[in-house]
Amino acid sequence: MKILVFNCGSSSIKYQLFEMPEGKVLAKGLIEKIGEKISKAKQQAGDKEIKIEKPINDHDEALNLMKDLLTDKEKGAVKSLSEIEAAGHRVVHGGEDVSGSVVIDDNVINIIDRYCDLAPLHNPPNLKGIRAAINMLGNIPQVACFDTAFHQTLPQVAYMYALPYEIYEKFKVRKYGFHGTSHRYVARRAAEILNVDKYKLNAITCHLGNGCSMAAVKDGRSIDTTMGLTPLEGLVMGTRTGDFDPAVIFYLIGKGYTAKDLDTMCNKKSGLLGISGISNDVRELEEKAKTGDKRAQLALDMFAYRIKKYIGAYIAVLNNVHCIIFTGGIGENGSIMRKRIIQNLEGVGVILDDVKNNETTGGKEGDISAENSKIKVLVVPTNEEKAIAQDTYSLVTKK
Amino acid sequence: MKILVFNCGSSSIKYQLFEMPEGKVLAKGLIEKIGEKISKAKQQAGDKEIKIEKPINDHDEALNLMKDLLTDKEKGAVKSLSEIEAAGHRVVHGGEDVSGSVVIDDNVINIIDRYCDLAPLHNPPNLKGIRAAINMLGNIPQVACFDTAFHQTLPQVAYMYALPYEIYEKFKVRKYGFHGTSHRYVARRAAEILNVDKYKLNAITCHLGNGCSMAAVKDGRSIDTTMGLTPLEGLVMGTRTGDFDPAVIFYLIGKGYTAKDLDTMCNKKSGLLGISGISNDVRELEEKAKTGDKRAQLALDMFAYRIKKYIGAYIAVLNNVHCIIFTGGIGENGSIMRKRIIQNLEGVGVILDDVKNNETTGGKEGDISAENSKIKVLVVPTNEEKAIAQDTYSLVTKK
Repeated sequence: MKILVFNCGSSSIKYQLFEMPEGKVLAKGLIEKIGEKISKAKQQAGDKEIKIEKPINDHDEALNLMKDLLTDKEKGAVKSLSEIEAAGHRVVHGGEDVSGSVVIDDNVINIIDRYCDLAPLHNPPNLKGIRAAINMLGNIPQVACFDTAFHQTLPQVAYMYALPYEIYEKFKVRKYGFHGTSHRYVARRAAEILNVDKYKLNAITCHLGNGCSMAAVKDGRSIDTTMGLTPLEGLVMGTRTGDFDPAVIFYLIGKGYTAKDLDTMCNKKSGLLGISGISNDVRELEEKAKTGDKRAQLALDMFAYRIKKYIGAYIAVLNNVHCIIFTGGIGENGSIMRKRIIQNLEGVGVILDDVKNNETTGGKEGDISAENSKIKVLVVPTNEEKAIAQDTYSLVTKK
Repeated sequence: MKILVFNCGSSSIKYQLFEMPEGKVLAKGLIEKIGEKISKAKQQAGDKEIKIEKPINDHDEALNLMKDLLTDKEKGAVKSLSEIEAAGHRVVHGGEDVSGSVVIDDNVINIIDRYCDLAPLHNPPNLKGIRAAINMLGNIPQVACFDTAFHQTLPQVAYMYALPYEIYEKFKVRKYGFHGTSHRYVARRAAEILNVDKYKLNAITCHLGNGCSMAAVKDGRSIDTTMGLTPLEGLVMGTRTGDFDPAVIFYLIGKGYTAKDLDTMCNKKSGLLGISGISNDVRELEEKAKTGDKRAQLALDMFAYRIKKYIGAYIAVLNNVHCIIFTGGIGENGSIMRKRIIQNLEGVGVILDDVKNNETTGGKEGDISAENSKIKVLVVPTNEEKAIAQDTYSLVTKK
């Protein structure tokens, strides 16, 4: 069954065409700078690549282009879009209404619409993509996979903030968490690797990429996670602060900043970039730190230190842990960063194997812990698109 | 040597007169509602108590009353104030300029004044008290003990927020931490109890009172703590939120709240009170929870859960830990709360002895961990006033 997976941003559409249940990627495309003077599109189908630059005004036009690329006689992947039997969409926010992937109907569209307020940068373009895909693909089943869904098993003690209870009741202000599709995917894969029933696995999943988050997974279900109402909370990220004293905001507003200034500062100008003053890219900072740049070193150390603290916190919460899982660009490739995080954790039963750690990069999967490590440390490359294709396949074939 | 210890708030002065180095309390007084229509004063000297109600306009008048009470012929503690050879003051914020207690001179007064901006509710009345005490007591040495001082050993990786570096340089926005005198006092006492050199002790100190904070103590020095730029960060407290996604503030400002509303909400209407809707008092909430009140139960559970997470985080940071120390009103008396916090921590080597836990309340000191607990759990009643008297004594006699 051919399943098309979408990840639609405000000015970009990523898509992948899968043959399911095999999980084979038939084509993979990116259309970006939608609405700008010159938009860019590229597609890879097997060894055939297409690159195009031309103006693309909106998501409907983008999907028209995608249709041309996918059905291109020489370099495409299908003869006709009618070969595609289902589609899956990444959606960021499903709030408290969605705890798993669902076939899209009017009710689901209403839910996505309802949470635009809580995810103003993501849910509106997700919805735009879904509408364009419905226009384009007609009457095939389409599935929404929510970033928040996996974390809907958080107990109240973990998702509530200690604000007045009315703030939760009135505005639904609580911890939601994100990257759920990735946390779930790597936790399920780890259960296979360790030969543990997926609903008996206790794991700490570390998704370290552009955004970074961790989850405490108990019996295969998320029971805590670092991101909160928004993706700002938790770990130090490329340009986001993660945790800090919220009263800093009151203090800086007293110094003349506006809430809008500070929102932008905390989300776009902080994190690795803000501390180092150089870059949001761990690889670049590792290079600079080697040459003695103190603020690059500080940024990397803070990044690792915050993760180490959450590893400890989640070990305490889980009590017994099978494994710590690294995934995402930094988690999969940053062997120096992994070492920085895991060193001096023997006290809680976590010991790295330096050789295995150094060897496991570039999309490799593997156990990088020492034989005497009580808690295993795994690298598991994430694949959110494949997870969405799998969810779509199982929802569609169940019918 | 008679040493008078002050803790001056905006409308209250607490004082204790010590005979040092014995540490005997000769008198203990509280003058409150200064500046209100009717102020209240009470003093206990041995078994002799005085209570007075009358208008007291300012800190100078309050200290005049204190003089009358301390030298009261029948119920006082000294014949003349000239018997008092030194004074010690609790001061909240010494910023990056003070890493220990210091004899007050013009430079120290300038430092306290400089940090009024970062501790607007505390440093100004602390300073008022110091000035009144200088007026009252004349030319004796007076010592300032800072709440922030013990935490000045935090490494940069722990005290920096991942905001743009300029925010630190320009505004000194960083983690300072508070309750330092208490964290230090109980850590030193725990070293004695465990017969460990005080500069070799690794401990997690939990000061749970009106305000709540924890510290990670490595080799006798604070290397991390839960409170931050202000006392808002970290644990759930009586009326303070502790940690939450700072973006909640941006979101609620978007809903029409002002920064001032939210500052008040987060500091005065949140925490145990905000969640339960009933009380900021753990004892009252324990009673309500027993009768099935779900929000009282939730508030208590959140309080414990946050502490459990920090215990794990600090175990990870310290790698090897001698003991967890409970102190402060809740830490010293809340045996149910201690049990709630410590349960299911066997995985990290912490096991409670239920009998010892239940017995150790009401100001008792003791080890409440099971024999097979890798990490000991101690209850150590705090005594900030005594710590201030000790600091004052050793600074004054060194001269």
